[in-house]
Amino acid sequence: MLAFISLKLHEVHMLEQLKHDVFKANLDLPKHGLVTFTWGNVSGIDRDSGLMVIKPSGVDYETMTADDMVVIDIETGKKVEGKLNPSTDTDTHIELYRACPDIMGIVHTHSRYATSWAQAGKDILALGTTGADYFYGPVPCTRKMTDDEINGSYEAETGKVIVETFQKRGIKMKDIPAVLVNSHGPFCWGTSPDNAVYNAVVLEEVAFMAFHSQMLCEGKLGPMQQTLLDKHYLRKHGEHAYYGQGDHH
Amino acid sequence: MLAFISLKLHEVHMLEQLKHDVFKANLDLPKHGLVTFTWGNVSGIDRDSGLMVIKPSGVDYETMTADDMVVIDIETGKKVEGKLNPSTDTDTHIELYRACPDIMGIVHTHSRYATSWAQAGKDILALGTTGADYFYGPVPCTRKMTDDEINGSYEAETGKVIVETFQKRGIKMKDIPAVLVNSHGPFCWGTSPDNAVYNAVVLEEVAFMAFHSQMLCEGKLGPMQQTLLDKHYLRKHGEHAYYGQGDHH
Amino acid sequence: MLAFISLKLHEVHMLEQLKHDVFKANLDLPKHGLVTFTWGNVSGIDRDSGLMVIKPSGVDYETMTADDMVVIDIETGKKVEGKLNPSTDTDTHIELYRACPDIMGIVHTHSRYATSWAQAGKDILALGTTGADYFYGPVPCTRKMTDDEINGSYEAETGKVIVETFQKRGIKMKDIPAVLVNSHGPFCWGTSPDNAVYNAVVLEEVAFMAFHSQMLCEGKLGPMQQTLLDKHYLRKHGEHAYYGQGDHH
Amino acid sequence: MLAFISLKLHEVHMLEQLKHDVFKANLDLPKHGLVTFTWGNVSGIDRDSGLMVIKPSGVDYETMTADDMVVIDIETGKKVEGKLNPSTDTDTHIELYRACPDIMGIVHTHSRYATSWAQAGKDILALGTTGADYFYGPVPCTRKMTDDEINGSYEAETGKVIVETFQKRGIKMKDIPAVLVNSHGPFCWGTSPDNAVYNAVVLEEVAFMAFHSQMLCEGKLGPMQQTLLDKHYLRKHGEHAYYGQGDHH
Repeated sequence: MLAFISLKLHEVHMLEQLKHDVFKANLDLPKHGLVTFTWGNVSGIDRDSGLMVIKPSGVDYETMTADDMVVIDIETGKKVEGKLNPSTDTDTHIELYRACPDIMGIVHTHSRYATSWAQAGKDILALGTTGADYFYGPVPCTRKMTDDEINGSYEAETGKVIVETFQKRGIKMKDIPAVLVNSHGPFCWGTSPDNAVYNAVVLEEVAFMAFHSQMLCEGKLGPMQQTLLDKHYLRKHGEHAYYGQGDHH
Repeated sequence: MLAFISLKLHEVHMLEQLKHDVFKANLDLPKHGLVTFTWGNVSGIDRDSGLMVIKPSGVDYETMTADDMVVIDIETGKKVEGKLNPSTDTDTHIELYRACPDIMGIVHTHSRYATSWAQAGKDILALGTTGADYFYGPVPCTRKMTDDEINGSYEAETGKVIVETFQKRGIKMKDIPAVLVNSHGPFCWGTSPDNAVYNAVVLEEVAFMAFHSQMLCEGKLGPMQQTLLDKHYLRKHGEHAYYGQGDHH
Repeated sequence: MLAFISLKLHEVHMLEQLKHDVFKANLDLPKHGLVTFTWGNVSGIDRDSGLMVIKPSGVDYETMTADDMVVIDIETGKKVEGKLNPSTDTDTHIELYRACPDIMGIVHTHSRYATSWAQAGKDILALGTTGADYFYGPVPCTRKMTDDEINGSYEAETGKVIVETFQKRGIKMKDIPAVLVNSHGPFCWGTSPDNAVYNAVVLEEVAFMAFHSQMLCEGKLGPMQQTLLDKHYLRKHGEHAYYGQGDHH
Repeated sequence: MLAFISLKLHEVHMLEQLKHDVFKANLDLPKHGLVTFTWGNVSGIDRDSGLMVIKPSGVDYETMTADDMVVIDIETGKKVEGKLNPSTDTDTHIELYRACPDIMGIVHTHSRYATSWAQAGKDILALGTTGADYFYGPVPCTRKMTDDEINGSYEAETGKVIVETFQKRGIKMKDIPAVLVNSHGPFCWGTSPDNAVYNAVVLEEVAFMAFHSQMLCEGKLGPMQQTLLDKHYLRKHGEHAYYGQGDHH
């Protein structure tokens, strides 16, 4: 009986921390200039319990509190805690968490340059070391969704088309923690809600630079050398990573 | 007699509230980076009395107060209250309020990307879900005005050419609450002065993204799928809208 | 005798006010995002005495005071007051004041979009009403300077090539209060130091919009209708101007 | 004995000052908008002792102190003082200090426009006086590195390919204090850590302007006149420099 109570307290504590982390990560979106109004959402997951914490729908960043976060069971897709409705994109988040156990946090924004690429329906090629430290190859853009997908369980289908994109191309989602949903915008993920936001910032920088580099080359610039991509990605992420205190420079 | 006084008090109160809302909405323009100097104006309307409240001409945002707002009768076009002259664009606002009873607030700015499109004389095609949540199709650019229109009642004619643009294309003004006046800049509207400012912010985001998406496609990018446009617009505005707490995500 | 003393006091007072105005106008440059470091300067003139007040060379905006302003006699080109050396561009300012008696203030910046046009060696066509309210036609770009001009009295020659540009094209400097010096950057002027800064802000906005409008049209966008240009410029500047409280909207 | 102690104290003092200068110069990077997260680093050198002070790897700008700076002997390449690991780019800095005795400070950033040019693999031509005051010719982009260089002592090889670029083109590193490393980003240097940051700011401005000027000319804009380049560079840097108080205007 005591053990049972202890377990329950432990669980509650874990979700409180996760709620706090997800709440804080959501606030970081406007801080980094990634969202206008409430056009963005961050979630995090507790893998032990299979519970996801996500931003509620329609609450202003300025008045939102950690207690407003909504808890969802990713197996059933149902809300298990929270007064408010979860983000409309909840079912997309669920599909990504289900598909890749390495993902611990997810971010969706309409950040300007990444969304411009998504609308153009084009991959962002790996063009330089800025991106190579975080994305092990091009950031893919999904195919357009079919009418049936759009008219069906649209948000869940959005997640499925993301997963399909990585599977068909043989890319691991943890190696390229970002995607462009065609005619829509970016989703990013990471090892925590905070890390997912970090990757969303990197993506916007990379999207900015790729736009301008391509303009200088009439859109015909090819990808960077594979050797250089390997070097930069693997010195940070491979088993031979040699970053002393773990940062970029 | 008492009833009559009560009505009068009610009217005064309504306009005070409207003045406050219009004043605040005007201040939101520089806050959102939509205007330089005093290059913008917001109005709101009280449909019961047919009175419009609009920013005065030539008053600095930093010193302006709610009492400086000017009240105009949209039937006669005459000022009925206010020490200062109304915005030079007043007659354009009047034409839009007359043409569409759904419009409760109007914004005019020279926001940078929207104005760049207006100068180019091009519609902003619907390219992604960022705009599809608010604009049910391309944001139209008006035809150039004739010499007679320019040399006549120019500001009223500007409003008329906007109304003509929507009528000729068979678009409802409430479905696409924004227009680009050729060689000039954007007008936006909405269900309140505040909502009109919201739509002006959305328009500038959409104009930014459309510019960059088109550059990536040599200006040849076509519109997004109609099914996706329908899905996004109608899940927010149709009778089957399913946004729990009314926001975008 | 008393009259003489009174006159002298009056003169001193006038220059103190002018020094203050020029000082303040210089501080407005970084405030409006027009300058990086100390890459800009503003001057003003007292036409009665023929004395020009200009920013000193090499003083940080953060530590500069009104007393640091330098007084130059535009007839002799010599410094008549001030501890510090005047801006290196002083001789360019002098040429403009000499050429056009309507000019009461001058600004030089390397603002980003205007300078990009100057480097491209291209006029900024009149494309919309944003500029038409202030510039009665295209903002001209000067021809390249000759080797002799560059190796001679370079700064004075810069002023002369500006004046030549307006004369050869038959434009009055007061009608288009801005120019792009080829391979260099913009000079703007106005009815006061403050008004010159205002025009420098307008120029940067216009340069931004013209860049993006031209990109949307593959650089082939022609000028706006003359009728519309007339309408907007003359409703603000002609004898039939009808701006109630003197602002744009 | 006293003389020895005195010398030691002198040395310590010099490095304390240098540490402070390098620390402050690192903080200036985010202030000038040149870095995102920790993506940048500044170093300085004491030529008498051959000791370089550089930013540590992976310390947040907000919590970093002058004491966190790391001291490296540029002859051995070894750390001689400091609790933390030095920046990963340390060996690149060392190569530049070794190659050019005039360099007293070095900056590496991934600033947006300069990096866009580096990814495009293109020199930034000298197009206007904004750059001509500081860079005596085009800012060169290095060749791509070979697989052996990338898989070998990558960071040292990066420095070597920079040095090679200047040698092969016959440019003195002090005359053009900036370079673009192909597919990577800019390195800048100067007469002090602070001056190197100054040049990094200039480079980003120049990269911005060159991008936009080239777009206006379909990428075909040629370099500015040599006479004008000479004039501007030499009036600031030659033996006949005539800048009164040492600034640009």
